Amino acid sequence: MGGDYAPAAIVEGVVDAIKELDVNVVLIGLQDQVEAQLQKYSYPPERLSVMHAPEVISMHEAATISVRKKRHSSITLGVKLLKEPGFDAFISAGNTGAVVAASTVHLGMLPGVERPGIGLLIPQLNGFSFIIDVGANSEAKAKHLLQSSLMAVVYVREVLGVQNPRVGILNIGEEESKGNDFVKETHRMMAARLANFVGNIEANDIFSGRCDCIICDGFTGNIVIKVSEHLMESAGTLIKREIKKSKIAQLGAFLMRNQLKQVLRHADYSEYGGAPLLGVNGLVMISHGRSNPKAIKNAIRATLREIEHNIISTMIKEISSK
Amino acid sequence: MGGDYAPAAIVEGVVDAIKELDVNVVLIGLQDQVEAQLQKYSYPPERLSVMHAPEVISMHEAATISVRKKRHSSITLGVKLLKEPGFDAFISAGNTGAVVAASTVHLGMLPGVERPGIGLLIPQLNGFSFIIDVGANSEAKAKHLLQSSLMAVVYVREVLGVQNPRVGILNIGEEESKGNDFVKETHRMMAARLANFVGNIEANDIFSGRCDCIICDGFTGNIVIKVSEHLMESAGTLIKREIKKSKIAQLGAFLMRNQLKQVLRHADYSEYGGAPLLGVNGLVMISHGRSNPKAIKNAIRATLREIEHNIISTMIKEISSK
Repeated sequence: MGGDYAPAAIVEGVVDAIKELDVNVVLIGLQDQVEAQLQKYSYPPERLSVMHAPEVISMHEAATISVRKKRHSSITLGVKLLKEPGFDAFISAGNTGAVVAASTVHLGMLPGVERPGIGLLIPQLNGFSFIIDVGANSEAKAKHLLQSSLMAVVYVREVLGVQNPRVGILNIGEEESKGNDFVKETHRMMAARLANFVGNIEANDIFSGRCDCIICDGFTGNIVIKVSEHLMESAGTLIKREIKKSKIAQLGAFLMRNQLKQVLRHADYSEYGGAPLLGVNGLVMISHGRSNPKAIKNAIRATLREIEHNIISTMIKEISSK
Repeated sequence: MGGDYAPAAIVEGVVDAIKELDVNVVLIGLQDQVEAQLQKYSYPPERLSVMHAPEVISMHEAATISVRKKRHSSITLGVKLLKEPGFDAFISAGNTGAVVAASTVHLGMLPGVERPGIGLLIPQLNGFSFIIDVGANSEAKAKHLLQSSLMAVVYVREVLGVQNPRVGILNIGEEESKGNDFVKETHRMMAARLANFVGNIEANDIFSGRCDCIICDGFTGNIVIKVSEHLMESAGTLIKREIKKSKIAQLGAFLMRNQLKQVLRHADYSEYGGAPLLGVNGLVMISHGRSNPKAIKNAIRATLREIEHNIISTMIKEISSK
């Protein structure tokens, strides 16, 4: 029921996924609505079932209150399913705060991890970087960022196949003396514990590929991804406005259309699936609120890689061993 | 002596400015180097003089230490000149931290203002917004942000001519319940004191024109402007890379060149001059480290508007009256 185009886009993406990928899915939500959408498609019925969730948490409800009050929402029921045998992961494009709160309450945290963090793949000119946290923990302490960085290393190594991931902390200058006390303390803790710590990186290194794991608090990370998303949209609007003024420019844009599409595709979040919620004791994937069917299918694909690589048990091992 | 292209770009910009604008300039720096540059140009000599500053603070020196040790740097001498009669403003493209530190120490703060803030004009689809702080105070308290917002209102009203500037605080959600404790406290203080407070704005509103003054701490603001700057550069690199792959796309880009230039011009900081350092008792303008001659000339132009509108005395009046 979550996301701006739910349930239609979610159902379509799930149907595509079960046809294409080796996965079984339970759709959780208002049964009537979900089944009405399902009737549009043909699909292998043994791979799909529907679970009724009578309550819906809307996109702008206060997270902790809604999770406490709506015990029969699709978010709460879905998170709780992870404690049943046979369920490997939960995916939601719904209220992010509610997913974080429900996961923390019902799954608990990994040993040695005190706060959850949302990670996100950022496309680089070549390859990807992984930024964490983009919004779960806006009141972070230095030790939370250290814990997130240990999880990020496992994620990037296992899921992206990068052998010895480079870790940087997002700061407003490269020198160790730069930034506020919070970042300086985090820097010290990470330098003492991480094998491949590159130190401070500035915001202009977020897209440079200089490091594999970019660590920041949830407030800063959320600002980073929203600025990025909206700036690209604004630039697009501005370019379109200028092009409309000239027939010749319109022809130029037409001739460039395949290249422009390729660039947009590179920057399109729906190509890369969702954002893993790390730190809770279960695989939870948060999809963009604007998720289209492709984004949902790719979120399922990304989640299958997490399952394959057993990232939860690897994280537990590595965090406790250090 | 400050900035990546100093002294050549600074001197060229100043020469252009004194020919075009009603302004007299003292160039402060290593006299030999500055005069060697000046020999390239003809200009009205009565409008320009050179003051020798035997020391140079480099771009990456620790700010407070360098200001304390190098008492004869162009930054320190320039800031101190503002206390002499006949000098209205100081402009530097040098080490930002050193300019902030020297200004704070030698000019002191405005009554009722405890910390300086660097403001910046952000081009919108239509018009401008003013964001403060983009890097002076990375350890901000709520009251500092309130003080910055009072200054921002004066700046935007006087310099941009916006009658009743709308003020928003940058947060990770629009609802009052969103964000960390620091932002919530700032929100309360601003709501109690500002005439036209629009509340929380999200990062996607930075470019939407939804408010005239965007208030945030210096850490967050610095991340915002650096992400914006670098993302545009990365997108440009990506587009060029794609276009190179096809002759037809190259022709398309050629036909669109005027429109693309117009878009780049809209996003080009050098069109809008420098970033005012607000809160200190004197007009100080910080130019981008990469300032070209046009950026320097436009920084002088922007500074003349500040002088014309007496923003310092208006700020003193309004902050103390409330």
